[in-house]
Amino acid sequence: MRTLLVIGIGAGDPGQLTLQAIDAIKRADVFLIVDKGEAKRDLVDLRRALLATHRPDAGYEVVELEDPPRDRAPDDYEHAVLDWHARRAALFADTIAATVPEHGTGAFLVWGDPTLYDSILRILEQVQHDARVPLAVEVVPGITSVQALAARHRIPLNRIGEAIHITTGRQLSQGLPPGVANAIVMLDARHSYAALEEREPGAWHIWWGANLGTRSEQLVSGPIAEAAPAIARAREAARDAAGWVMDTYLVRRDEPAALPS
Amino acid sequence: MRTLLVIGIGAGDPGQLTLQAIDAIKRADVFLIVDKGEAKRDLVDLRRALLATHRPDAGYEVVELEDPPRDRAPDDYEHAVLDWHARRAALFADTIAATVPEHGTGAFLVWGDPTLYDSILRILEQVQHDARVPLAVEVVPGITSVQALAARHRIPLNRIGEAIHITTGRQLSQGLPPGVANAIVMLDARHSYAALEEREPGAWHIWWGANLGTRSEQLVSGPIAEAAPAIARAREAARDAAGWVMDTYLVRRDEPAALPS
Repeated sequence: MRTLLVIGIGAGDPGQLTLQAIDAIKRADVFLIVDKGEAKRDLVDLRRALLATHRPDAGYEVVELEDPPRDRAPDDYEHAVLDWHARRAALFADTIAATVPEHGTGAFLVWGDPTLYDSILRILEQVQHDARVPLAVEVVPGITSVQALAARHRIPLNRIGEAIHITTGRQLSQGLPPGVANAIVMLDARHSYAALEEREPGAWHIWWGANLGTRSEQLVSGPIAEAAPAIARAREAARDAAGWVMDTYLVRRDEPAALPS
Repeated sequence: MRTLLVIGIGAGDPGQLTLQAIDAIKRADVFLIVDKGEAKRDLVDLRRALLATHRPDAGYEVVELEDPPRDRAPDDYEHAVLDWHARRAALFADTIAATVPEHGTGAFLVWGDPTLYDSILRILEQVQHDARVPLAVEVVPGITSVQALAARHRIPLNRIGEAIHITTGRQLSQGLPPGVANAIVMLDARHSYAALEEREPGAWHIWWGANLGTRSEQLVSGPIAEAAPAIARAREAARDAAGWVMDTYLVRRDEPAALPS
């Protein structure tokens, strides 16, 4: 039986690491790193810097994993997705079997929190389900970009008694469920907040941040119509500074807050 | 100008403290503690233990703050709430002015994350708005019970591409917005998940946890109908062990997950 630690390492600032995460980092024999997209190189470097700080012994290995290739325009979409998931789980199982000692400990260092918009727990569940490599999985929570965003803007995520909706740009562009007054959007490369402003001009405020907790951090807030041009500029400034941009935002309907109970 | 640090300290396990939080703890001259409810004594003790560990110098003061009394059955509900908020902000301003040195640093140690279902940022905003005590506020994020719950159950908070709704028991008992398939419930003392089961028998799964990250932690998961009696028993077991119980849960509709994009 191998132990697999899935460790949240925070949203970009090395100070967001928890003591639990540091303890877990100290236990691992092998670190498995999965990244993609334009920020990949910086994200890998940030993890290597964390390891240099918290594992001065250097008694570990680092293995970079790449997702298997994927058919982006399949005839049968559903089948192609399931097939890709199966191939990915097989690749992870093989890599774990080949690199983590049989009674040893592997660790995934995950950006943000492993339970929020990250696929690693689903992949490991499939590896366990396939039963080719018996695994004991432990999860260590990490600070998310949602929390970093709210902290940097010094705002509560909701008004008293209100619900909070965490969603994607794709879902936001299709509209929020009725009654939702606070939405946090992750994974939006398409400025989907503009759809809110179009539907209800002047009704929404935005708190936006990019590359949170890093040197290229950018913050903008205001009514959507006013903030949108500033966000577009700040997004480019973050990309110019870092070579990549990852943003998160909170949108809130400007209506009287519900009274507390 | 006084500096006020609002520091998230995690959901119960002292290992959830971040390096940022520890650095902030080291900067403070005075710690302001606000607690209420049945867990109050343990929560205060946990903070004092954190301080004993991370501030061995003991060169700080601890001030416990209590919310001002409140009229629970007022003739004019709205006016009573606004009046109570004003009295609370005045009390906080007076306490900060009396205990934090004029160019010094005060710190609130907040359970979980200060931006999620906590009133301290709203109170400090009102103190700043009243301008009786000029304050520079900094916020340090902390691991929430939501993240501790998902980590202990080793589950993602949502299925691929789905939104997540964070809400209260009060809101859940009135029903979820249409299309919401994942809801996290905090602050529920009334088993509001039973309302989901009544409306759609057999359609929902629950992952529940109490006193997460502490010695009296309890975890239960399953279809709501099956899990409900076990949750009731586990809730009592947590209360018997600790003298208090604080629980959080995720409910998810059992329907095919949306396909990934």
